Amino acid sequence: MFFEIEDNEVDIVIAALRPDLTAFFNGWRTIFSRFHLIIIKDPDLEADLQIPPGFDHHLYTKSDIERVIGSSPIKFSGHSCRYFGYLVSTKKYIISIDDDCLPLQDDSGNLTDAVAQHLTNLGTPATPSFFNTLYDPFRQGADFVRGYPFSLRNGVQCVLSSGLWLNIADYDAPTRAVKPHEKNTRYVDAVITVPSRALMPVSGINIGFDRRVLGPVLVPALRLKGVGKQRWETMEDIWCGMCAKVVCDHLGLGVKTGLPYVWRNGSGNAWESLKREWEGVKLMEEIVPFFQSVKLPRTLTAAEDCVVQIAGLVREQLGPVDPVFGLAADAMEEWIKLWKTFEFERR
Amino acid sequence: MFFEIEDNEVDIVIAALRPDLTAFFNGWRTIFSRFHLIIIKDPDLEADLQIPPGFDHHLYTKSDIERVIGSSPIKFSGHSCRYFGYLVSTKKYIISIDDDCLPLQDDSGNLTDAVAQHLTNLGTPATPSFFNTLYDPFRQGADFVRGYPFSLRNGVQCVLSSGLWLNIADYDAPTRAVKPHEKNTRYVDAVITVPSRALMPVSGINIGFDRRVLGPVLVPALRLKGVGKQRWETMEDIWCGMCAKVVCDHLGLGVKTGLPYVWRNGSGNAWESLKREWEGVKLMEEIVPFFQSVKLPRTLTAAEDCVVQIAGLVREQLGPVDPVFGLAADAMEEWIKLWKTFEFERR
Repeated sequence: MFFEIEDNEVDIVIAALRPDLTAFFNGWRTIFSRFHLIIIKDPDLEADLQIPPGFDHHLYTKSDIERVIGSSPIKFSGHSCRYFGYLVSTKKYIISIDDDCLPLQDDSGNLTDAVAQHLTNLGTPATPSFFNTLYDPFRQGADFVRGYPFSLRNGVQCVLSSGLWLNIADYDAPTRAVKPHEKNTRYVDAVITVPSRALMPVSGINIGFDRRVLGPVLVPALRLKGVGKQRWETMEDIWCGMCAKVVCDHLGLGVKTGLPYVWRNGSGNAWESLKREWEGVKLMEEIVPFFQSVKLPRTLTAAEDCVVQIAGLVREQLGPVDPVFGLAADAMEEWIKLWKTFEFERR
Repeated sequence: MFFEIEDNEVDIVIAALRPDLTAFFNGWRTIFSRFHLIIIKDPDLEADLQIPPGFDHHLYTKSDIERVIGSSPIKFSGHSCRYFGYLVSTKKYIISIDDDCLPLQDDSGNLTDAVAQHLTNLGTPATPSFFNTLYDPFRQGADFVRGYPFSLRNGVQCVLSSGLWLNIADYDAPTRAVKPHEKNTRYVDAVITVPSRALMPVSGINIGFDRRVLGPVLVPALRLKGVGKQRWETMEDIWCGMCAKVVCDHLGLGVKTGLPYVWRNGSGNAWESLKREWEGVKLMEEIVPFFQSVKLPRTLTAAEDCVVQIAGLVREQLGPVDPVFGLAADAMEEWIKLWKTFEFERR
């Protein structure tokens, strides 16, 4: 269950929401340059991208997306464009980081290698069946606490590593509007397995995952009517994070949160976004009880099948509440078709 | 749900397992001296206790214990003697710290006030229904992450605060024997609500709790045949922590883990203890699935009744596995009788 992940097993997927990515890529150069990069240009973006030289990358634009997905009901604009990268990647692991984030820098100017930490999280087991008060037991200098059953110490495969942010935390628009100047300054030096059956909001800002296992689940399904380019104007990552956790619990796989941190620079006026975001905040009141109640049949042993099953439940139970849920179900089913086509073509 | 806990609502309960407590109490002086202390002398200890002057304390010894509990099947020797303090306390909150721990000291010599942190944990809500990736949302500078439902942001009452240890971590004997020199040097600056339905091993080394709510659950029930004076030779705290979590989940109450840390000095030869501890390690393989399966009837709304119900299940389901479980069930039932008698006398 412990393994080294080779650099050539990894794609870094970057959603380009702004044209000038010079500072972003230069900031990440020492970390990213060992890897193959997939850059997806937001199809709503007109201006040409500025990407500094020296990266092994493949750029996908609106025309690539349209050519591949045709008349698909899935929308790949804004933050959702990265999911197109998840689809076209041929690698086992994906790391995706928002283009307004930089690596964390210590007082001596050393950079925190967020990619390496994600790969460590994915290459060591998760322990969702029982909570370890000493945090990640596989970390150097740590172990399982007294009382932790030995039969559970092997853990399970970790397929999702959800990282955090210093400077600008990932708040919703109301919270950001109330606390416009609050910065997250506290570095919590821990990785935690989110326990089985506990749900959490996965932020897509800074994540790593096992594409072959979890790729079918990570689909930009829930699209707010007032979706925007600010994180707090989107819900697609929260939605597919809930799906991912439910599927992981069902399949006996693990999700970790905590390290690595990235340094996040925020922008945008939360107050102006409040009108749109209120929609997402209201929807969460329906989404959480729904996902807490989802029971998947034991016969489902592949993530693809779980997603189709969940899509059916979404249409049936959430569909009557708001039309966005029916569209989410459509997108999930369509994604599985696309995913299977790509898997077939890769063989 | 936010409240200040007054000093006179708190008892500090100390189990005295060694006679000379001079360094211990002097180390804690600035922190403990504001509070009333209950000191329970391990009934197996012969020598007189040395307690430095200047503490408002009440000392209970073997004769006090015998007078009060008579022929009770509950054994209050070793680490378990502290539970006698939980019984005789008249305060709303209890903080209990092992006598081989000292307050954490920073580079400037400032002490970490573990008691204050426990009281903060107990005086702010817990959020067991949904995991907040930004850790304790009620801490200064923190909040709920995007996607956290507003309807769950009030949280629930926190009744158990389970703290941690720097220097010597709370390992079991096999782990300590394998890593005799490993020190816990990593300070994780976080408080986490353990999610609903996730179980954890609660260590009794450094805890705070709401005695009126959770006192009935914290009973030294599981006594290993080879019980000893080293932490790794006991399981009573792990057992009642499992009970406490199940009862909290049932009653809609919260459990937190993380801060505060204490500085823990260890002693003892783990290798020599292995013979005894192996028993506890084996029992955990039965204990965890049992507690994961416990379902309490909705009609039970008081912790006392939950404990009696769990005791019955223990006798029925675990009793046939090992005689220590039958004795644990007896102790739990007896504890509830004792607890009710004391509650009655206090009125």
